[in-house]
Amino acid sequence: MAKTATTSSYSITMRLHTPPDHGIVGEAATAIAAAGGVVTGIDVVESSPTRLRLDVTCSAADGEHALQLQDAVGALAGVEVHKVSDRTFLLHLGGKIEVASKVPLKTRDDLSMAYTPGVGRVCMAIAENPDDVSRLTIKGNSVAVVTDGSAVLGLGNIGPGAALPVMEGKAALFKRFANIDAWPICLDTQDTDEIVRAVELIAPGFGGINLEDIAAPRCFEIEQRLRERLDIPVFHDDQHGTAIVVVAALTNALRVVDKQLTEARVVVSGAGAAGTAIVTLLLAAGVTDVVVYDRVGCLVPGLEGLGPAQQQLAEITNPRRVTGGLHDAVRDADVFVGVSAPGILDPEWIKDMAARSIVFALANPDPEVDPVEAAKYAEVVASGRSDYPNQINNVLAFPGVFRGLLDARATEITVEMLLRAARAIADVVRDDELNPSFIIPSVFHPDVPGAVAAAVRGH
Amino acid sequence: MAKTATTSSYSITMRLHTPPDHGIVGEAATAIAAAGGVVTGIDVVESSPTRLRLDVTCSAADGEHALQLQDAVGALAGVEVHKVSDRTFLLHLGGKIEVASKVPLKTRDDLSMAYTPGVGRVCMAIAENPDDVSRLTIKGNSVAVVTDGSAVLGLGNIGPGAALPVMEGKAALFKRFANIDAWPICLDTQDTDEIVRAVELIAPGFGGINLEDIAAPRCFEIEQRLRERLDIPVFHDDQHGTAIVVVAALTNALRVVDKQLTEARVVVSGAGAAGTAIVTLLLAAGVTDVVVYDRVGCLVPGLEGLGPAQQQLAEITNPRRVTGGLHDAVRDADVFVGVSAPGILDPEWIKDMAARSIVFALANPDPEVDPVEAAKYAEVVASGRSDYPNQINNVLAFPGVFRGLLDARATEITVEMLLRAARAIADVVRDDELNPSFIIPSVFHPDVPGAVAAAVRGH
Repeated sequence: MAKTATTSSYSITMRLHTPPDHGIVGEAATAIAAAGGVVTGIDVVESSPTRLRLDVTCSAADGEHALQLQDAVGALAGVEVHKVSDRTFLLHLGGKIEVASKVPLKTRDDLSMAYTPGVGRVCMAIAENPDDVSRLTIKGNSVAVVTDGSAVLGLGNIGPGAALPVMEGKAALFKRFANIDAWPICLDTQDTDEIVRAVELIAPGFGGINLEDIAAPRCFEIEQRLRERLDIPVFHDDQHGTAIVVVAALTNALRVVDKQLTEARVVVSGAGAAGTAIVTLLLAAGVTDVVVYDRVGCLVPGLEGLGPAQQQLAEITNPRRVTGGLHDAVRDADVFVGVSAPGILDPEWIKDMAARSIVFALANPDPEVDPVEAAKYAEVVASGRSDYPNQINNVLAFPGVFRGLLDARATEITVEMLLRAARAIADVVRDDELNPSFIIPSVFHPDVPGAVAAAVRGH
Repeated sequence: MAKTATTSSYSITMRLHTPPDHGIVGEAATAIAAAGGVVTGIDVVESSPTRLRLDVTCSAADGEHALQLQDAVGALAGVEVHKVSDRTFLLHLGGKIEVASKVPLKTRDDLSMAYTPGVGRVCMAIAENPDDVSRLTIKGNSVAVVTDGSAVLGLGNIGPGAALPVMEGKAALFKRFANIDAWPICLDTQDTDEIVRAVELIAPGFGGINLEDIAAPRCFEIEQRLRERLDIPVFHDDQHGTAIVVVAALTNALRVVDKQLTEARVVVSGAGAAGTAIVTLLLAAGVTDVVVYDRVGCLVPGLEGLGPAQQQLAEITNPRRVTGGLHDAVRDADVFVGVSAPGILDPEWIKDMAARSIVFALANPDPEVDPVEAAKYAEVVASGRSDYPNQINNVLAFPGVFRGLLDARATEITVEMLLRAARAIADVVRDDELNPSFIIPSVFHPDVPGAVAAAVRGH
């Protein structure tokens, strides 16, 4: 991947002190551009007869590039670079979510209705009719975003505290896209039994459980056991959220290349949480020919070195018993879906896929194949990145899924709900919009959460 | 207690259909007043040639009284009472708190800073410097309000779901009075080991733990074990919040009657969570003569039927070895503090207390003695009720206490902090304001949370 693309997630603001010559503003902007940075704002903070103070905000490609930009500006005659602040860190300072009261608390009367003594009657109503808890409390609209910090983004096992910024971000997205009140629960254990028990114990206050960034294969057992024990829906977003959006995008990609889902040959690279869920949902959607590739090779029953989850996958996939490496897997395939590791798909191999091939390279932040290279041979290319067309982003799924579940007071999640959600996302793209660079709606498309919620509710 | 005092926590709105005669508005208001209700609002919703529709809102004393008010209005000629809605239940519909995003999420750039990929750098910063979690996440400002639902208000063991309205109310108060982001955690267990473990497991995401409405004696062990294991402060509000406010109020009450804390004879009725904490804090404040009364009688070492917590109390109190019933306990006492049961203090017994006696009757909602009766013999009377002077309300303490703890990144709570908090609350009442009916500030006094927080921080 080229590193020169700048990103606002590496946006910095430099405070410059300069001589009182306004020409410096243009010089600084030019120096930043010459060093590959993108200026997004310049504020003159102070202009006196003796000096200027400027705040220059610009985007860099990464941390090293940000330092290069500072050096480039600092090398200008008379310019001193003072405080440099990192906009992403500033944004996260003090956390990204807060709790707000929905009721007035200004007078003694307010307190006596929201708290004691009035609240006592509401408590007794719930004690007498336990089902009323969803109606009379936050439970009807709240989701716990639960992690053990064992598989956070692509960063690995960084623990519950370091995972908290992601869980908070998720909670903020729940509110933004579906008006759901989600709270992060970062668990100080990575023991399956303890995670299951902890979630069971906190469940009374929540209307749904969103498991997040829990490593495979532990995540499968945790989800299964929680689904058996709880009367609220349990959804592992890394599995099912990803699967929904992949199936949605693939549905539309196949429309573009004029192929049928039931006849397509699909390769899924990566048999972790996401890969397993994608395969399961593809099979439920009617795909018949799926080959799963993992580090040990193409999964076939009896292959050595498989864990229980992979063995189960081998049993239900690969009807043609394809063996060998990834190049063998993709030969004559219509679709490649990668949820595995950066750079493992040689772009040249795409030539050996069937005509009008589809490549989803979803490893994050660095995909299985450079999307630009892949597009030379594949007709439709998607990735997890926002700087290429066709971004596969879970934000399209999880807010609407939980909105639908909470609205319906659902006690469980079914495969049919997941399929309907995928179909709903695909359908947001109109026929006249559909093309190889537009198979999936923007995460900001206002119709998405409502369409997904309605699909999950089933009416 | 007289039942005729109306309360806004029993406020109802009746929709009336009447003939098109505006005189009916006055008749309805008169009928409600005659039946002991208080009209707080009348809205004419529709006025047509054939009928009027009115919404009449009024306060009742309790549920039975609310029905009487409906009957009184329904008995008027031509008036039909349609939907009756209960304002307290309407207020609680859908819950009383919500989650809000503190960061913009309008553009792709916003998402890339608040969520992936930008959030990854924040996660790694915390993984490298774990202490940064308080600065870069909600942990620095968040409190878990934890209950097992075993001793909710005066309602008893109603379970975690029915306790949720109280915990939400508490969270709303945390925000309102100290800008703290608190989230309710209602645990589906009443086993001490499981409660301790569950709180330990969720602790990474919170800056403090507020235990709430957990029954004694379990609450003592839970708090002690959590304090040993966690690196964030653990505060059982039913114990320490109550103790702080009682000591604050008593400090000022003794100023009113011109007595010294160190010389006062104090009776504490009730050896549960609140009573135990009050006694501990009174002793730390310098009180030397405390007699604890519980159902079994005045606590003395060796008394039969005492649990371990009560035995411990007996060891450190009652230097004059007073024995017998509550009447024996209060004879010649300067102060009565009741956190026990309704109506157990005969007002006549107050005559046998020392001159210029102080009576705090804090059982809720029905105190140990009617405050009006008590005031005939005691010089200073306080209760837990908002409809009498001198309300002892934990809202005076817990928001400021946690504000101070979070500001200081405190890892524990000390008795000295509790004493300083009590002193800070007492000091909010100015000398020229102090009188037998004003020993404690209003919960709405704007100086209280800041004064308490500063006292807890210690600077």
